[in-house]
Amino acid sequence: MSTIKPQNAKGTRDFGPQQMKRIDYIFETIAKNFEAYGFMKIATPAVEKLDVLTGKYGDEGDQLLFKILNNGDFLKKVKSEEVENKDLKSVTKKVSERGLRYDLTVPFARFVSANQNDLAFPFKRYQIASVWRADRPQKGRYREFFQCDADIIGSKSIMDEVSLMEIFDKSFKDLGLKGLSIKVNNRKVLQALANQMNAGDRIVELTVAIDKLETIGPEKVLEELSQKGFNKDQLNYLSPLFELGDKKFSNIDKYEKLKNIFSHEPLGMQGIEELETLEKLCQATGIEIIDFDPTLARGLDYYTGCIFEVKPDDGSMGSIGSGGRYDDLTNVFGLKDMSGVGISFGADRVYDLMLERGLFENIDNSLDYMIINFSDDHRVNYLELANKLRDKGHKVEVYPSSAKMKKQMNYANKRLVKNVIFLGEDEIKKGMYTVKRMSDGAQTEHLNE
Amino acid sequence: MSTIKPQNAKGTRDFGPQQMKRIDYIFETIAKNFEAYGFMKIATPAVEKLDVLTGKYGDEGDQLLFKILNNGDFLKKVKSEEVENKDLKSVTKKVSERGLRYDLTVPFARFVSANQNDLAFPFKRYQIASVWRADRPQKGRYREFFQCDADIIGSKSIMDEVSLMEIFDKSFKDLGLKGLSIKVNNRKVLQALANQMNAGDRIVELTVAIDKLETIGPEKVLEELSQKGFNKDQLNYLSPLFELGDKKFSNIDKYEKLKNIFSHEPLGMQGIEELETLEKLCQATGIEIIDFDPTLARGLDYYTGCIFEVKPDDGSMGSIGSGGRYDDLTNVFGLKDMSGVGISFGADRVYDLMLERGLFENIDNSLDYMIINFSDDHRVNYLELANKLRDKGHKVEVYPSSAKMKKQMNYANKRLVKNVIFLGEDEIKKGMYTVKRMSDGAQTEHLNE
Repeated sequence: MSTIKPQNAKGTRDFGPQQMKRIDYIFETIAKNFEAYGFMKIATPAVEKLDVLTGKYGDEGDQLLFKILNNGDFLKKVKSEEVENKDLKSVTKKVSERGLRYDLTVPFARFVSANQNDLAFPFKRYQIASVWRADRPQKGRYREFFQCDADIIGSKSIMDEVSLMEIFDKSFKDLGLKGLSIKVNNRKVLQALANQMNAGDRIVELTVAIDKLETIGPEKVLEELSQKGFNKDQLNYLSPLFELGDKKFSNIDKYEKLKNIFSHEPLGMQGIEELETLEKLCQATGIEIIDFDPTLARGLDYYTGCIFEVKPDDGSMGSIGSGGRYDDLTNVFGLKDMSGVGISFGADRVYDLMLERGLFENIDNSLDYMIINFSDDHRVNYLELANKLRDKGHKVEVYPSSAKMKKQMNYANKRLVKNVIFLGEDEIKKGMYTVKRMSDGAQTEHLNE
Repeated sequence: MSTIKPQNAKGTRDFGPQQMKRIDYIFETIAKNFEAYGFMKIATPAVEKLDVLTGKYGDEGDQLLFKILNNGDFLKKVKSEEVENKDLKSVTKKVSERGLRYDLTVPFARFVSANQNDLAFPFKRYQIASVWRADRPQKGRYREFFQCDADIIGSKSIMDEVSLMEIFDKSFKDLGLKGLSIKVNNRKVLQALANQMNAGDRIVELTVAIDKLETIGPEKVLEELSQKGFNKDQLNYLSPLFELGDKKFSNIDKYEKLKNIFSHEPLGMQGIEELETLEKLCQATGIEIIDFDPTLARGLDYYTGCIFEVKPDDGSMGSIGSGGRYDDLTNVFGLKDMSGVGISFGADRVYDLMLERGLFENIDNSLDYMIINFSDDHRVNYLELANKLRDKGHKVEVYPSSAKMKKQMNYANKRLVKNVIFLGEDEIKKGMYTVKRMSDGAQTEHLNE
């Protein structure tokens, strides 16, 4: 038998016991807050039909979908000419009907549409699960990664946005993460701007370009848009937007300046009013990290209202949370007029940031007791004592064989055992056992009852 | 935009809030027991390289692997002749390098081999996650389903088997599932039998056939083996095995009879001794449901020692748990001499069985408080009261808009809200709020402090 390298597929990771404790701590902290606000946990499958997934994430997104090869005779409908002509699109359709989910939002829209008659609306759900994207792996970017999503669907109230901002704020506080801002904007502001540019139908191109502002700078954004056919007059409308990105402006300054710009653009006014209300209500609940950023665009096509992005202020990392309001997500599945809003925690980046900042120190993976195995003759005694201690809520192991003491103690050290128990012939006769605390070697005797 | 049916891929399921609470209850109960015995949680990715997965589950298993289409120009290496000749095997290799995991055991073996220098052995891990098989979906059989696995690797002690049997026993007791048996056997018994038949190298064929005994009966098993070239003299060795399947024999009877048969077959004697020790130690810890079944074979190739299967005694369902000892699983990844033993809970069948038996009655998904929304003017009051109650550990929602009372109360009923809160203008002035208990309509006043 030839040996196979025990390698992970590129862009995927294992989580060993310590990493797992840490990521679970993040999940549990966030889930506790989701539950406190009435969100209910659901699960959708990893595998979805491709017609559910394609066309929802833009062309680039479609390229990044992982597609599953049909089982059985997958070549049945493929013609050899198609292979000769490298007609990838046509062959893909014939050999693959399913794919791995790209996010949790589109499967959620499918779920809501399919179960619309059984759900109480507004329906509030959360889901914590892996998603897959065939991106080029790099630091902090994986092909299989976690999303923690909460969405409210069937309500248009700004109160929904408020509760999601509270969950962001509380969860990051609970995790000990300080120095963050929740950047907010409203797609209505961007749409109003597009309308003013006489390019209302080109909002997607516009947001895709503006989304890159922080990475490539305003000149390159304007260059990209100019190449796409936006003329100079149109691009001039973007100048005040870029200027407002400056940190010297307070949120109130920015609202006022944009109200002037949008005095004849009711959609823009509406967007600004929503942002003002959101900020006011958030302040009343003690959230101090809302930062209105009119250049925030977000990559996804489906947003139509408020959009959010959480980032560390020191610029050490990209977004660790994001979200927004969408009006049409279930339309495509036949369920009309369902406005929704959701947020997503980037759990992998939250993990990296917490690791950088040393916030996992109190999370350990220790074992309360390990019972030394002296002899096969006393196995029943060991098993009984172990169960007595488990009944008291402790984590307990019996060392499986009567190996040399040194070997057993080495294991105890490596396994981070807190207490080692000696239950030798003498102790058994006396109805006692001895506990050795590993931190300082202190030994105590206990009644075995 | 054309409408897409909100359908799941065949053989996959959604878990709505109620189902999710139930499956999580099962997972948490089992995980609590895994942890009490010192098992540590890990996670491996859903996507693995195909060379890790293939060749581990027999030919049939390889057929059932879900393969992922390579991204980019996946046709690069495919020749049109291969398509014309329907050379599925060759084309598959060229268009797909990754697949979805088929179980949690092989990825675990890869994990252990890759991390051998960092782990404390014996290493005890658990993992609860989805696996995928391209089986034909039917009642109780899905293409995406859950496994809950615990494995100990790096120890040959029968004490490992004992702790796993304790976990089976305790978990099913904790879940309220009675009337179950843990059927046990030992591959050494089957191997000894094969040796006696002078067919020691045909153990896989033999176990595959015997594995079907319960479904197709002894005649068909013998027929299958005869077709595979086993002669009558060889098949005669199976008669005592089939006879011992009879319920009239106690475990002790069966051990004695087999010891006579294996008097010149040390491997068989060793297998029986292991089973006797296992039963003795299990009895000492209070496990009463061990049932030695010498015809238990289990489908997987890699088992070499004790094997297990948990089934309801009333025959209402197939196995709801299984496992066994394997000696060579990490060999293929370059890590020699690592004996391991593991169990797997069939969570989906446990779920179905508990549902059938009405064991989920106490698991609810209710919300502690919903605050009625009378007016936008008092939104801050609602938000503040909600947070006071959340700080006390309650789950609380504010109804998002000031909709008609009837609409808000309908939602409260459908959402299973325990208490509705009225905080109107009067209450705000008085510094009070009113709680209406939904079960009986009783109203109480409370200080809002």
